[in-house]
Amino acid sequence: MGRHTLEYPKTKTNTVRRKSDRASYALSAIHSLINSSQLLNVAFNTPDSSSFPTILPMIGQMGSFDRPSADLGDPLDLYLHGYVSSRMMNLARSSSSPQGEDKEQGLPVCIATSHVDALILATSPFNHSYNYRSATLFGHATLVTDDAEKLYAMELITNGVVPDRWRASRQPPTPAEMQSTSILKVTIASGSAKFRDGGVHDDRHDLEDEDARGQVWTGVLPVFSRIGEPIPTSYNKVETPVSVTDFVRNFNKENEEYVLAAAKK
Amino acid sequence: MGRHTLEYPKTKTNTVRRKSDRASYALSAIHSLINSSQLLNVAFNTPDSSSFPTILPMIGQMGSFDRPSADLGDPLDLYLHGYVSSRMMNLARSSSSPQGEDKEQGLPVCIATSHVDALILATSPFNHSYNYRSATLFGHATLVTDDAEKLYAMELITNGVVPDRWRASRQPPTPAEMQSTSILKVTIASGSAKFRDGGVHDDRHDLEDEDARGQVWTGVLPVFSRIGEPIPTSYNKVETPVSVTDFVRNFNKENEEYVLAAAKK
Repeated sequence: MGRHTLEYPKTKTNTVRRKSDRASYALSAIHSLINSSQLLNVAFNTPDSSSFPTILPMIGQMGSFDRPSADLGDPLDLYLHGYVSSRMMNLARSSSSPQGEDKEQGLPVCIATSHVDALILATSPFNHSYNYRSATLFGHATLVTDDAEKLYAMELITNGVVPDRWRASRQPPTPAEMQSTSILKVTIASGSAKFRDGGVHDDRHDLEDEDARGQVWTGVLPVFSRIGEPIPTSYNKVETPVSVTDFVRNFNKENEEYVLAAAKK
Repeated sequence: MGRHTLEYPKTKTNTVRRKSDRASYALSAIHSLINSSQLLNVAFNTPDSSSFPTILPMIGQMGSFDRPSADLGDPLDLYLHGYVSSRMMNLARSSSSPQGEDKEQGLPVCIATSHVDALILATSPFNHSYNYRSATLFGHATLVTDDAEKLYAMELITNGVVPDRWRASRQPPTPAEMQSTSILKVTIASGSAKFRDGGVHDDRHDLEDEDARGQVWTGVLPVFSRIGEPIPTSYNKVETPVSVTDFVRNFNKENEEYVLAAAKK
């Protein structure tokens, strides 16, 4: 692909209704937000929770087992690590039992992530806002049973936490590790992203209100996530690897630069 | 109240199944995590989204309109600001129509928030983990129609973004502002929190593996949210108020201190 910017088709499920000028349906924008999120919120319905959906925080990355060289703008699957989600695993297992011609097999899930980039303090409380980047995906989750695909997903997810961490940690996995770890694969049905950047938007009547202008501080408070100095274990024998120090430096630089640039737009 | 630590009763809906020693059902722990979150993930089912639940990021705070002096350990309601959720508002409105003796009227919602506090890099990729704090609430959302309660919730939510911001911004609200803003009130049915702190937990066989010990860096990467230097608007005439500078300093200090202390537990 690569020549065209692919977009998720707008449907009833994924269309952004409010402030639709802030929406994006581009696969690259949505997938890169998902992949830069340390945690994803995964919502699903359970038969035992009356009418409440459930949200679990999970770790995940977008990828393509069939075409590992695919880039973020290509159609991809979402792989989720099942550490915190035994309940969901059971549902995905039972939902993915063969159902003949039903292409939508799997547990229906919604995945969402948001970064807060700034607090926007306006003259009126009602013009207060946030700069943010959020992404939402809808899809069907099934349990990965193929060992090669499972290994691919584990490496993908580990390297999503810290680049190159899979190779930099103890290899290969033991049979017990492979068996005790479950991976969910979400086949994506649709998705959307939503952004806000820029500064304060005050109403004209507030800008012309000299009383208010003399009393209310207006401006932007930038918010960014930082990684602090690495803290080695007491038994660590190895110098902090370049892959870790580079990751920390890039993470901090990219986050702060994005947030400050977005505030000035 | 105050003499006893109140807990949400464990039911099928809210019981933490995996790593249950990391769970808490204390109202104070859950409510304070919700109130310190800049965004909440709110999941609900819509009639038009086939079987997918939907997640929207919303701003919210726990409070009690009937007893404003209630503390975080008391039974509280969750007030959500409806800026991004016109779809949800419509559902809450239609779900909250009078239904006789039905006490559970309102739109069933799940609310979740997570803070990532550290990346835990172990010898084996399978012992990698996060330090985190997460909270989940289940409840029924209805639209606030009483003007006094709406005003209470707007002040509560604004002061949840920056302490004292309601009073420090232009007052009173205009009739148009009051009318164009919607507030959802979630009556809480149950909830839970889940935590992980501490350092790396390696398996004995990895600790005894001299090859691995000589090759793999193990340790903790602390993660914390920071607020940068306030950026005033071009037309701002007022010095940065103490309420803002105090907030920025306390936010940064408390976040970093918590994260570093948790990593050392």
